[in-house]
Parts: sequence; structure tokens; C-alpha cells
Amino acid sequence: MMTEAIMSKKVKAPKLNFKEGIINLTHGSGGRAMAQLIEQMFLAAFDNQWLAERNDQACFSVSAGRMVMTTDAHVISPLFFPGGDIGSLSVHGTVNDIVMSGAKPLYLSASFILEEGFPLADLQKIVNSMAAAAQQAHIPIITGDTKVVERGKGDGVFITTTGIGVVPEGIQISGNRAKPGDRVLVSGHIGDHGVAIMAHRNNLQFQTTIQSDTASLHDLVAHMIAAVPDIHCLRDPTRGGLATTLNELALQSHVGFIIDESKIPIRTEVASACELLGLDALYVANEGKLVAICAPDDAHTLLAAMRAHPLGVHTEIIGEVIEDPRHFVQLKTKFGGMRIVDWLAGEQLPRIC
Amino acid sequence: MMTEAIMSKKVKAPKLNFKEGIINLTHGSGGRAMAQLIEQMFLAAFDNQWLAERNDQACFSVSAGRMVMTTDAHVISPLFFPGGDIGSLSVHGTVNDIVMSGAKPLYLSASFILEEGFPLADLQKIVNSMAAAAQQAHIPIITGDTKVVERGKGDGVFITTTGIGVVPEGIQISGNRAKPGDRVLVSGHIGDHGVAIMAHRNNLQFQTTIQSDTASLHDLVAHMIAAVPDIHCLRDPTRGGLATTLNELALQSHVGFIIDESKIPIRTEVASACELLGLDALYVANEGKLVAICAPDDAHTLLAAMRAHPLGVHTEIIGEVIEDPRHFVQLKTKFGGMRIVDWLAGEQLPRIC
Repeated sequence: MMTEAIMSKKVKAPKLNFKEGIINLTHGSGGRAMAQLIEQMFLAAFDNQWLAERNDQACFSVSAGRMVMTTDAHVISPLFFPGGDIGSLSVHGTVNDIVMSGAKPLYLSASFILEEGFPLADLQKIVNSMAAAAQQAHIPIITGDTKVVERGKGDGVFITTTGIGVVPEGIQISGNRAKPGDRVLVSGHIGDHGVAIMAHRNNLQFQTTIQSDTASLHDLVAHMIAAVPDIHCLRDPTRGGLATTLNELALQSHVGFIIDESKIPIRTEVASACELLGLDALYVANEGKLVAICAPDDAHTLLAAMRAHPLGVHTEIIGEVIEDPRHFVQLKTKFGGMRIVDWLAGEQLPRIC
Repeated sequence: MMTEAIMSKKVKAPKLNFKEGIINLTHGSGGRAMAQLIEQMFLAAFDNQWLAERNDQACFSVSAGRMVMTTDAHVISPLFFPGGDIGSLSVHGTVNDIVMSGAKPLYLSASFILEEGFPLADLQKIVNSMAAAAQQAHIPIITGDTKVVERGKGDGVFITTTGIGVVPEGIQISGNRAKPGDRVLVSGHIGDHGVAIMAHRNNLQFQTTIQSDTASLHDLVAHMIAAVPDIHCLRDPTRGGLATTLNELALQSHVGFIIDESKIPIRTEVASACELLGLDALYVANEGKLVAICAPDDAHTLLAAMRAHPLGVHTEIIGEVIEDPRHFVQLKTKFGGMRIVDWLAGEQLPRIC
């Protein structure tokens, strides 16, 4: 019953056609084609001891202490954009959510939902970009999953990454710790990511100059904590932008904010593009920025530490926390007026991350 | 500048229309609609201290030791099927991948990719079913994410769950530990899940009697380990079925298998449906079964422990591990012949999980 044909088929798996091949339903079937894709693409790029074990779960040792877990689905369109792609973004997004608790990133998982017909060459670029981003943040991708859906039931690639990290002893950073009098810092120019995507989608001339700010903030945060261990809140203003982040923090901490418009760093090209596209930069997504809140006495030490880091050069103190039972975010405008920065009511930028 | 209109809008968020509402792009925007969906649906159903904190990550304490992490994307179609739905499946799938290492499940994350137009009433059913499955497996869903894609760029709901668990001291279960002479056990009837889905899709009469076996195996595994701490391998034969699982284990452990067809438990209706649908039950997905491999001296103790548990009543010893440098899985057929059970080459059942 053991034919030579079966034997040779069994022993050597053919190479994937990385140049012209496409994803088909067999790549999600659990069979030989899926094993090939995992072996020749994912294991080759993410290359680590946990994936090499080929179990359905990855095992690792931990010390006693506090850990964090966070997850993000990435559905950005287009998949490739100025300054990055869905691969690097899916690592940066989850690394940043880990480090916003003050934790050190430990491990990532990645799940892929692929659409039938997606070019293997594009998938390879995305996977390589993920691998590079993970390596740069020192966080191995230790377990994963791949599913394939029929043409027209997905959109190329969706990637969900989940990360865990360990919180150093004594660190207590949480969205509910903002206190009246605290200062609010933002780590650089806002709106770059969202505007880069929108300019690219609309084929505007700005697309040549505006790049997404997508980046892992693990190292910036490590420097910040070294300078000021008692940071009260950290959050990355992604979907919904700075406005949404401040509104969330106001609710969590039962406080209000007064923010000074003239202090908010924003690039001229981003401001111009926002005007053209009818966007309010305060609501535009960022993928490599953070908002930090600390006691007034710590603010200048934190500012100096942030400005000394390449990802925080343009940090500004943009406002302060006030007592406000209504949890309003108020903006002192450049013209001297005040306006409420409300929650985003509609949809400004679909599929921005 | 603070008008009454803004103030009242700010203070009270309108109730979602759970009966007739649908998902639209605003539910993924990061703004008010997303906050409402998270608050009124996810937080209400998953109800726990971590989600209540409303941070982008969840924090918890761990003891020193070994942990596992695993992830699964769920893209099953249809979303509701006999015996379950994508919600319960997405919990069972990840819980089972955790417990197949012998670990105790600790925490889950969940990310949702929703298609514009999806009925909120259906989403509520799915979320409730997830919540019930998580509660039954004592594993809280502590962090999550929601994205929305345009109509025609997704397929209702995709759910990625990621889980972590803690491995009890002394337990060493891994796909590379099968040794020649070891016995192979399967915990019950195979093929129920895949056939239930296919019968449902094809509107066969079997659909009224065949139910998916989807279930969390945490309690069965706990009983197994209590009886036989030195189980060598555990794996749930999901996509690709029993045949794929045995081929994977053969490769990982550098062994072969001889399996006795007459010992493999399979329901008559499932066998009939397979014949009608042109499926080989050995390759059909299961979502509430496991394969266990242990030393020959432990096999009968393990068999007895499994049969004493409601989810293992129909356990059988189906074969044994042999030395085989080719890593073949061989089947002793009911007619006395032998055949190679090869890796699945094509696609048998798309979107089965």
C-alpha cells in the first residue's frame, strides 16, 4: 500500500512560489499547504525557539509579579502606506498598549485572516516587516494562527496581535490616576499617521512628504520611567486621536482637562492637509505618540527626559488636569477663546489602524 | 461656548438599539458610538474587574513558574450552527489549546472584526454565548478590541481569542514526547463538528440530529492529569481532523503510528453523512475531542479516568506509537489491510472554525 509516489510526496514538501503564488483556501485547511506556509514563511521570518517547537501553544517561564495583556485587531487600508505597513503597525500597536502600563514587553502572538487570492509576495513583505518590528522591540512572536476566507469575504490581510508584558515593581500607571493640577504632555507632532493614510487614499500631493509616525514606544517609555517613576497616566492617542484619549482619561479619573491649542505640536503639512480634507487634527490617529500625565513637580524632569529621546524630541506640556464633575476637555484656542473638545460623534477615518 | 446641547449630549449616551440596530463604521471609530458598544454590550456581558478599569491593557498578578500562550482566529461560516456559534467556539478553541499543554486557563483576550451592516441582535447573541463559555471554563475575558470594516470587506464577525494559562509544576506535555510503544487514545466520536457544519450548509436531513461537539476540555484534562500526571502528548484534532493531528505528532516526535480503524469511535449518522458528502471522517474537524498519548503502563488508568468524565465517556485506545523514520501514520483497515493516512493535500472543509 505504500507506493513510491506517496512516499516521495510525504518526504519533501514543494517550495511555495513566493514570486507569483497567491493564497488559496488550502492554506487555511490544516493540511500540507498550511504546514508549508507556516514553515516557509512564518517560521522562517519569526524564527525563534517557541515556534520551532510546533505546538499549538508556546510555553515560557515567568517570575512572580504583575503582568499585563492587551490585544488589537488591525484592518488598516491600504495595507502599505507611507512610513509603514500593516505588519509593522500590528507590532507597534500592541507593543505600545503594553508599554502604556509601564510594562516591559515579553511575548506576542499573531493571528492572520487572509483573503483567497492575496499575493504571497505581499504577504512576505508584511511578515518580514512584522519580524523586523518585533526584533526591534525585543518581543518574539511565539505563537500564531492562520485562517483563509473566500474572495470577497475579507480584505487582503487582517492581523490580530496580542501581547503580554511584565510590570516593574513599584510602577503604577493607569488611566484613573490623573489628579487636578497634574500636567499633560504629548510626545510630538499629532495627526501624522491618520493624515498620511488619508493623503495616500486621496492621492494628494502631501502624500510624498507626510509619513505615518508608526513606531514602538518601549524605549521612550523606559527612559521616561527611569527619570520619573511615578508617572500617573500614559496612553497612545490612536483611533480617535488626542481628543478621544483625553476624554477617556477624564472619564476614568473623574477630572477635566484644559489644553492650550498653541502648545499642541502639529506639522504645517499635516495642518494644511487637515484643512483640505476637512479633518480636525485633534481627532486624527497617531501610532507613535503618547500622552503622559504626571504631578506638576515632575513635569519638567519628564519633559527633559522625553526630549532627550529620538521619539520624544518634540514633546510639549500642552495643558493640565482640573477638577470638573462633568469631565470636560476644554481647549484654549489660539484666538483666546475656549471650546469643548467633545467625544467624536461620527466616523472620521474608517480603517485607520 | 458650553451650550446646553453639548452638555446634555456629553452627559448621557443613548442606548444602543439592540433589537433593530446594525453595526456601522462609527462603531469602530474610537468615538462615542464605539464607547457605547463596548460599554453596553461587551462590558455588560463579560462583566469583570479588568474590563471595568477601561485601560487599553489588563493587569494581573502571577506566581513564578511556567506559562503558556495561544491564539486562534475564528472565521467559521455559518456563525450559528447546530450545537454552538462563533462565540462559544472562540472560547472553547483557545481554552482547549491552553489545556492541551496541561495548563490551567487563566485569562482570555478577544478581538472582533465586524462587518458594517451586521445586526446588533446577532452580535449580542454571540457575545452572550462567549460570556457563558468563558464563565463555564472559569476564564475571564479581560481585554479586547473592536474594529469595523465596510460592507463586503468582511463576513459578519471574525473573532480572535488569545489565552494564557499556568502549567502545574512537574507537568511536561508536548507534541515531541511520543515514544515507540506508547498508546494513543481518542476521547470520543470523531467528525461531529465538521459534519454538523457541512450538513447545515448543505441543508441535509442529518442536520437535525448531528450537533457540533464544541466544548471546553479544561475539566476533562484536569481529571486526566490527576490520574496520570505523566501524559506525554495531548492535542485537539480540530482543522484537518485526527489524521492531521497524528501526522503532526509523528513529525514532532520523530515516530510513526499504527491506528486500528475498528477502534475509532464514530457515530453512524456521521459516517453516513461523510459518505454522502464525500468526506473522510479522519480529516474532519472536531472541537470538543482530544488525542492523548501515554506510556503503555498508564493507558488503562488513563482510559478509565477519561471514561469516568462526561466529555470522555466514549474514549477508546485506538492504536500505538511505532519507530518509523518516515513518520508515517498507518491505518489497519476494517478489512484487514493497511493504508497510509497522509497529510491532507487539498481543502476539504473551508471555514470550519
